Amino acid sequence: MSGNTTGIVFKVTTWGESHGKATGVVVDGCPPNIPLNESDIQRELDRRRPGQHTSSSPRKEEDIAEILSGTFEGKTTGTPISIVITNRDVRSGDYNQIKDLFRPGHGDFTYFKKYGIRDYRGGGRASGRETAARVAAGAIAKKIIASEGMEITAYTVELGGVAVENLSMNNIWRNRLFCPDMKAAEKMEKRLEEARERGDSLGGIVEIIVKGCPPSLGEPVFDKIDADLAKALMSIGTVKGVEIGAGFRAAKMPGSECNDPITPEGFATNNAGGILAGITNGEDIVMRIACKPIASIEKTQQSIDIHGKSTTLSVTGRHDVSVIPRIIPVCEAMVSMVLADHLLRQKAIS
Amino acid sequence: MSGNTTGIVFKVTTWGESHGKATGVVVDGCPPNIPLNESDIQRELDRRRPGQHTSSSPRKEEDIAEILSGTFEGKTTGTPISIVITNRDVRSGDYNQIKDLFRPGHGDFTYFKKYGIRDYRGGGRASGRETAARVAAGAIAKKIIASEGMEITAYTVELGGVAVENLSMNNIWRNRLFCPDMKAAEKMEKRLEEARERGDSLGGIVEIIVKGCPPSLGEPVFDKIDADLAKALMSIGTVKGVEIGAGFRAAKMPGSECNDPITPEGFATNNAGGILAGITNGEDIVMRIACKPIASIEKTQQSIDIHGKSTTLSVTGRHDVSVIPRIIPVCEAMVSMVLADHLLRQKAIS
Amino acid sequence: MSGNTTGIVFKVTTWGESHGKATGVVVDGCPPNIPLNESDIQRELDRRRPGQHTSSSPRKEEDIAEILSGTFEGKTTGTPISIVITNRDVRSGDYNQIKDLFRPGHGDFTYFKKYGIRDYRGGGRASGRETAARVAAGAIAKKIIASEGMEITAYTVELGGVAVENLSMNNIWRNRLFCPDMKAAEKMEKRLEEARERGDSLGGIVEIIVKGCPPSLGEPVFDKIDADLAKALMSIGTVKGVEIGAGFRAAKMPGSECNDPITPEGFATNNAGGILAGITNGEDIVMRIACKPIASIEKTQQSIDIHGKSTTLSVTGRHDVSVIPRIIPVCEAMVSMVLADHLLRQKAIS
Amino acid sequence: MSGNTTGIVFKVTTWGESHGKATGVVVDGCPPNIPLNESDIQRELDRRRPGQHTSSSPRKEEDIAEILSGTFEGKTTGTPISIVITNRDVRSGDYNQIKDLFRPGHGDFTYFKKYGIRDYRGGGRASGRETAARVAAGAIAKKIIASEGMEITAYTVELGGVAVENLSMNNIWRNRLFCPDMKAAEKMEKRLEEARERGDSLGGIVEIIVKGCPPSLGEPVFDKIDADLAKALMSIGTVKGVEIGAGFRAAKMPGSECNDPITPEGFATNNAGGILAGITNGEDIVMRIACKPIASIEKTQQSIDIHGKSTTLSVTGRHDVSVIPRIIPVCEAMVSMVLADHLLRQKAIS
Repeated sequence: MSGNTTGIVFKVTTWGESHGKATGVVVDGCPPNIPLNESDIQRELDRRRPGQHTSSSPRKEEDIAEILSGTFEGKTTGTPISIVITNRDVRSGDYNQIKDLFRPGHGDFTYFKKYGIRDYRGGGRASGRETAARVAAGAIAKKIIASEGMEITAYTVELGGVAVENLSMNNIWRNRLFCPDMKAAEKMEKRLEEARERGDSLGGIVEIIVKGCPPSLGEPVFDKIDADLAKALMSIGTVKGVEIGAGFRAAKMPGSECNDPITPEGFATNNAGGILAGITNGEDIVMRIACKPIASIEKTQQSIDIHGKSTTLSVTGRHDVSVIPRIIPVCEAMVSMVLADHLLRQKAIS
Repeated sequence: MSGNTTGIVFKVTTWGESHGKATGVVVDGCPPNIPLNESDIQRELDRRRPGQHTSSSPRKEEDIAEILSGTFEGKTTGTPISIVITNRDVRSGDYNQIKDLFRPGHGDFTYFKKYGIRDYRGGGRASGRETAARVAAGAIAKKIIASEGMEITAYTVELGGVAVENLSMNNIWRNRLFCPDMKAAEKMEKRLEEARERGDSLGGIVEIIVKGCPPSLGEPVFDKIDADLAKALMSIGTVKGVEIGAGFRAAKMPGSECNDPITPEGFATNNAGGILAGITNGEDIVMRIACKPIASIEKTQQSIDIHGKSTTLSVTGRHDVSVIPRIIPVCEAMVSMVLADHLLRQKAIS
Repeated sequence: MSGNTTGIVFKVTTWGESHGKATGVVVDGCPPNIPLNESDIQRELDRRRPGQHTSSSPRKEEDIAEILSGTFEGKTTGTPISIVITNRDVRSGDYNQIKDLFRPGHGDFTYFKKYGIRDYRGGGRASGRETAARVAAGAIAKKIIASEGMEITAYTVELGGVAVENLSMNNIWRNRLFCPDMKAAEKMEKRLEEARERGDSLGGIVEIIVKGCPPSLGEPVFDKIDADLAKALMSIGTVKGVEIGAGFRAAKMPGSECNDPITPEGFATNNAGGILAGITNGEDIVMRIACKPIASIEKTQQSIDIHGKSTTLSVTGRHDVSVIPRIIPVCEAMVSMVLADHLLRQKAIS
Repeated sequence: MSGNTTGIVFKVTTWGESHGKATGVVVDGCPPNIPLNESDIQRELDRRRPGQHTSSSPRKEEDIAEILSGTFEGKTTGTPISIVITNRDVRSGDYNQIKDLFRPGHGDFTYFKKYGIRDYRGGGRASGRETAARVAAGAIAKKIIASEGMEITAYTVELGGVAVENLSMNNIWRNRLFCPDMKAAEKMEKRLEEARERGDSLGGIVEIIVKGCPPSLGEPVFDKIDADLAKALMSIGTVKGVEIGAGFRAAKMPGSECNDPITPEGFATNNAGGILAGITNGEDIVMRIACKPIASIEKTQQSIDIHGKSTTLSVTGRHDVSVIPRIIPVCEAMVSMVLADHLLRQKAIS
């Protein structure tokens, strides 16, 4: 029941199925007088568009964002901003083959069990397509946090088992995988190509950094900002793990190493990932997420149909080999929403 | 602002500072006619009590839970259940030394920045003591999910760098670290002892398993059950990472390995950790959390005072060496609350 | 901030300005498998359409509801239902005259003070047009409560000072004012005509009855169902008063008269209006609302411009003389939403 | 389910039964650094205390408020403020007679139908005693709004059919009914005495005025401030009607009379009651509520027992004749909470 809304002040509600008429989002609680037009949103949407690269689905649609309310003469008015993205290139026929099957790794089985009905076309609501609406909302959130000096960057640190070694942030914009290590990026591309040939898919790890975040964002005790960030990131369909700062490495450290010494100039290290007791401390916020491999693969898999009968299936059609790089702007969107929400929440009490 | 409440139907609000008069919790939305008395809550509270073991703080207080409302003749009535745990053994004097200092790894700095005022005694609201209220609420949640056949167990899989090797679930109840590998448990104890002698602290990893969870719990798209579990677990002060199912290992798998094949008898593997597209699939729910080492250590650390002047400090007083094992019942409590909430949410629409 | 959503389980978010591209609504939390198509919504929307009658605005647009998500093969799927109503007949030019003025009785002044920016065309978000989205959501709510045997009827009991005397429910559908007294309806029409000629407007009172509501809906203590009904009805722009059951008459009664005696066959009277201690008791729910006269009148009024300078104005353009009868389906929609929400809330705990 | 919390930023959760161990409240979202001690709360609680006057219940308990968390050295810290009011003078034996009966006008019947269990002692959660917790929370809200220059006053304008004629605000504090007309107050007392002798009870009307409220509080469209005020006031058990500004009188006015002209000095009249389009306009906020007569009367009434068998009953024990004047501080508390919440909400976006 009603889980399609997130945020307390900056409140985001998404809707839409993969092969329905459209997907969209309503953003309520955006402060007034923020310059906003459709190109602000389009720019972010274009970053998650499929069809340009070998690892991406060849579905050719162009996500065109239309703002239907909440702005006037190029500025937000404080009223809800409704954005609609019409589904253009939809070939539902492709999905007739899986109409009565549960694809492994997909929500087919669980949606059917939960609702007793499901829009099987392209995964319906459980499709990656739903993230377009998140990216649209994130574009607005980004404007809010940018106005307070925050800058957010997501990039690939592992793909198909290839990890980055030498991070040079300038590289992020020099390869389509948003990878800060050009050599690693090359190897990752090779792995993607091999996986595609095998009819298989790959997972990876994305790191997200927020620079310029002021101290004091986050609320004790359940709405700690790391808790809200973890929820926001884990709510992306493909994510199976979330780390903040030193993350799982922190489990192996003694306190004398893990505690970040405080100096008059700031924190000497950043194992905390910019968050102490659930509240930002002014250092960079650092997060990492584990992405599982894309569930739709051509390789033959074992499954059952909706009557419980055993079967095998090969998922053909247009599918990415990895959620990387298309998940990158989605990560940025989710983190931006959380920060915008907590920024406004903090204003309420200060 | 107002982050001390969690849950939509099963709504939990905690309050209280480490060295205030009391801590407590209000549980609203609990169904009526559930047998409940104070011993149900006390049993869980006793599991997180300090003072019994070498790794625990020698603070001797007994957490006594008192139910002030919401039950009648031994049953819940559907009205809010208020539970108060009085703080008995409070030595605030211990904390005068850190009154004007920011302890590394603690919320001292961020609370001060956020609120401009803080109850410095024992960390105030940011104290682990706050989790007593969570455990009390979790005891009620446990009764709700148990009545639907769910059983939840948390146990230690790594501590101070010592990882379990042979898991035998029966062992969990045979050592005070809730460790399923007796040999590993022994080594862990040694590490704890060594760390205590060095005036240092240790982190670790806890795994939580839920058996008997029916399919269909969890909501698209933001309130996926893994998203809510991640938030709930990350909201425990010490947690820096959360994994579901294969977690970070999933990032290295190809889809053909990560996807769990479906058979007429159920899922053949459980890399999904019991959750597909944010909804439970009937398999065991499997989670792991990374706990950072306790921030309070006797070893001298570098820090600043509230005027920004450089200083060093050694945190004396009564402190645990590791949050393990006291965090174990807290993990169970948080997971129970999420499951109870989603169980009731699902009832609303079915 | 974020006040455009209502409901806990049956969650309704509206958006849209009077003269923007469209208005719409997202309904989250609707149970799956409810038959729903656009004609279900259109039927209700047609009841509030302007342009058919002398008391209505001659704006000729047809509100056409389009369902963009949340249904599949004619049934709800449990995912958010997005409905868009495109604004077709929009003449923004009409509003240039009031661009820099605050119309008395309107939100012009307060929106400007609150946001520092406003879409002045047709009142922007503060337009009665916003209620089209409510009516669309209400059409879905009606289907939910109808399936539990509830039936809701709103009708006019006073207009321009003319009160009904002999109520015959069959008459409601025999005059365009939804008035249960045909003679009163005739007089009301006369008053409307006179007011139109004077360039003035009229208020009135609407009564709403719900038949077939089961006992047990409503929550102690803040979300009493009468509290939620009062909020829902008062949130309609024009409403200045709400009564339940005997309402203000109850203030003059002794307890021995006001208390409804209980018999084995049910309650002997219904001064409570079907609600005791905030929970439905199985009797008819009876509510009355006071509607102020339409704020837009041609008669010259005193006001100020946005620079604070005194001025006079006459609001020309297409305006109704009274919110009655167009408010009738809006009242039904709001009450339906509250009942659907509480019906699902009660299911969660029973 | 979970209806015991109200407010978005200034979040209030009450708990407790009439004859349980205690009642109380948790206030989350209160800004830090507000001077607050127990006497601030006690002062308000003392105003609703029973036992001083002829119209009040002779129950002699003293409501003593204890702050258990959320303050430090006399100031709020930004963390949840927990207040407990212990029930001292509880004679549960008095209620054995009604254990198996449904008292007319009470929640006995509906609580039983809703939950299948009820704490019948003194009405349990549906007791007027629950409002003590509201008054405690309201005392904090009052401090917040007072710091912005707002002042709130509630007073009696009708009781037992006796209406005030000449309002002199100074009189409010000169009679125990908080009545601004001394002559009317005298007559009201006489009516109360007569009703008591007859074993009957009386209703009345209370008016509440807020002076000094700035423009801009309130949110479109569902959380209009008049909608939230209506809900807050209607959530008081005894209230059957709420009016804002001209209220039901507005239904009889033409627009040319009802619209408040705007002048450079402010609004010329205040039929709007200080609220336009759901947002405060800077004028006095004016509300009126209709209170039904107290349900507990000695006069013999007809009812049924829990088995559905017909019976008669006379409610003896300690009961007020009218909720006036004890409801006065409750009204002020509810209005204060709504204003504090909207004040903080507005800060979030401005």
